[in-house]
Amino acid sequence: MELCQMNKEQLTAFKNEAQALYNDFKAQGLSLDMSRGKPCTEQLNLSLYLLDVLSEDDFICENGLDARNYGMLDGIPSAKRLFAPMIGVNTDEIIIFGNSSLNAMFWTVQTAYTHGILGEKPWRMYDKVKFLCPVPGYDRHFSVTEFFGVEMINIPMLETGPDMDMIEKLVAEDETIKGIWCVPQYSNPDGISYSDETVKRFAALKPKAKDFRIFWDNAYCIHHLTDKPSYILNILDEAKKCGNENIVYIFGSTSKITFPGAGVAVMGASKENVESLKKFLGISIISYDKINQLRHVKFFGTYENMLEHMKKHTAILAPRFNAVIEALEAEIAPLGIGSWVNPEGGYFISFNSLPGCAKRIVQLCKEAGVVLTGAGATYPYGKDPEDKNIRLAPTYPTADELKKAMELFVICVKLASAEKLLGE
Amino acid sequence: MELCQMNKEQLTAFKNEAQALYNDFKAQGLSLDMSRGKPCTEQLNLSLYLLDVLSEDDFICENGLDARNYGMLDGIPSAKRLFAPMIGVNTDEIIIFGNSSLNAMFWTVQTAYTHGILGEKPWRMYDKVKFLCPVPGYDRHFSVTEFFGVEMINIPMLETGPDMDMIEKLVAEDETIKGIWCVPQYSNPDGISYSDETVKRFAALKPKAKDFRIFWDNAYCIHHLTDKPSYILNILDEAKKCGNENIVYIFGSTSKITFPGAGVAVMGASKENVESLKKFLGISIISYDKINQLRHVKFFGTYENMLEHMKKHTAILAPRFNAVIEALEAEIAPLGIGSWVNPEGGYFISFNSLPGCAKRIVQLCKEAGVVLTGAGATYPYGKDPEDKNIRLAPTYPTADELKKAMELFVICVKLASAEKLLGE
Repeated sequence: MELCQMNKEQLTAFKNEAQALYNDFKAQGLSLDMSRGKPCTEQLNLSLYLLDVLSEDDFICENGLDARNYGMLDGIPSAKRLFAPMIGVNTDEIIIFGNSSLNAMFWTVQTAYTHGILGEKPWRMYDKVKFLCPVPGYDRHFSVTEFFGVEMINIPMLETGPDMDMIEKLVAEDETIKGIWCVPQYSNPDGISYSDETVKRFAALKPKAKDFRIFWDNAYCIHHLTDKPSYILNILDEAKKCGNENIVYIFGSTSKITFPGAGVAVMGASKENVESLKKFLGISIISYDKINQLRHVKFFGTYENMLEHMKKHTAILAPRFNAVIEALEAEIAPLGIGSWVNPEGGYFISFNSLPGCAKRIVQLCKEAGVVLTGAGATYPYGKDPEDKNIRLAPTYPTADELKKAMELFVICVKLASAEKLLGE
Repeated sequence: MELCQMNKEQLTAFKNEAQALYNDFKAQGLSLDMSRGKPCTEQLNLSLYLLDVLSEDDFICENGLDARNYGMLDGIPSAKRLFAPMIGVNTDEIIIFGNSSLNAMFWTVQTAYTHGILGEKPWRMYDKVKFLCPVPGYDRHFSVTEFFGVEMINIPMLETGPDMDMIEKLVAEDETIKGIWCVPQYSNPDGISYSDETVKRFAALKPKAKDFRIFWDNAYCIHHLTDKPSYILNILDEAKKCGNENIVYIFGSTSKITFPGAGVAVMGASKENVESLKKFLGISIISYDKINQLRHVKFFGTYENMLEHMKKHTAILAPRFNAVIEALEAEIAPLGIGSWVNPEGGYFISFNSLPGCAKRIVQLCKEAGVVLTGAGATYPYGKDPEDKNIRLAPTYPTADELKKAMELFVICVKLASAEKLLGE
């Protein structure tokens, strides 16, 4: 029986049962963290050999330069070749950054804010600039734009990606809309991959602002959970077909391929964008860590080997995601008190409770020792207008911990839902 | 006989002789680069073992966190302990950055520009802010402030450091003077170490602007060329004595200790500064490369071992510096057409020609195949008002190359000086 069909008596009994189970759990004194998309130790161990892979004769690059020394601002040639296919660009359309794609994204926004894009007016010179934010989305994206005083406009996510009708209309009208945050494959947190039509419509956008950019954070481009992965369309190729190649900045990293703290981040864009950004970049740094680039090149050898390597991650992660989905399907689906997408890749499961319950569920979990991503975190300014979205991050805990955490989670969903329906 | 004492006939003969030697050199088709302060291959090889130093049981830090994963924004505890004494701060007064102290400096200026310092008005909100720039100085410093539209004011370097009378007067008067670039030990390019009095006067500065900061780039803090090194006073300690501890940002790195492209950069400041900066930093990155921090910790073990390691650099570099000084003393000193400081550390020898000759000397060298740092580069906006300063970087070429390059250099100085005195 679904919860909304219960009468008050049935609901009260249901609630009391959930409360009793909850109290038992609380007494166990758990201490688990499911708050962030962190790879687990087994995953980290997959790339251990990366750390010892270099030998003395590896340092001289094909251009004759020593990777240990200064120089090569935009990366070593072999790293460009390795990573270009990962983000779907040519080797003259890529910049190799340090260990953090978030840092590369922050830097591109900061540069647009202080100095502008391709000669356009810097964003700081406007009273207000705006970004479109597909929701739910990635909290750290929103923090960057909030930091620079950018007004963020929520765009609903559909099964095909963000609501393109709304996006096309808004960017055509408003010259102060300067960008949009996208995680196009296995979106954070919904796990939705943008449809071909969505990518084509993005590539063909005709924004009023010449300096509008799509921040295409392809963080999970090869991070599949099935053995039959599908890929989204190549946005830069599509944009070129429309004579629109300057519209997109593409980001990626090996943070969830090798090491979260010590991977390699990359950015792809049109040659014109790349050349312009390199001029700014050269003011701020002489080069990023090219020895680490070299390690990745030697460890993987080819992009195809990187794809093979990802299968090992899939083998570790798929059972964890299944455990979450199974718990939700067994305990929540019959009650009609939540919805979710079963993702085919990425790092999250996005759970939608009954409206007005997310904060309460997260609070209940926390009080019983399981930390989830804060309710609201998946929305700009931390404000989920319906208070219903919770991002579950199943990658870091062990299988046993995850089982425990999900047992607690479903109890908390039941308890909070019953409270809500009882008008408490 | 000094050149300025020669009559026209003597000068013409001198010039013709120099011209003939120059022509011979030009015919040799040299191709040497003395433009930047790059460590040489022998130096890079000193730290090879750093790259293999880690083993599987090294990753868990004393706080229980895995250095391979996300987290620890401001660095791992053991890296803070290792590097704190290098820049003279406590472990709660340090942030460990990525591979580039230039990038850390850029970021602090950018943050002051966009968001302000400790709640003060962001620099972007002024019509104009100004920096003091001891000259000659480091071109990349000047590029950062120029990038943000900061007006740069030249401050003469004396034997004791920058002209403190001038600095004290300017900062007390002008609320828009927001900072000063300093390389306090073995300054770039003069190789001058600030006297105790200079450091004390810096520490006691009373600027009109509350958000005035000394950018204390202690790039060469342990980079000695003698076996009896001297150290400058600890500026943060001195500032604390004056109740002025927020006035300084200290920077350092291992770029010239381990690897220029893959070292560790650090920043030291008062706790209040550090806490405030960490809030901003957390928007732009989750953490820097902590595995590389760990490598440095394990490679050195202690700060004392790092000092021992530096002696190996000294052994490689001291003969190179001597070769330059010997060439200048033998060929230039008797002619009275140049002056220089014999540095006890750092990466450069700063050569001052007769006024109006530096560009010509650099051009002559270039046309004969030896690239020097561009004349003017050691001044803000690339404008050396007397056109006399040339930064010589003797670290990168081999001993043979350096000998050749200096042979050419002294010929070019002679030729350009004679041309100048002949009024050509």
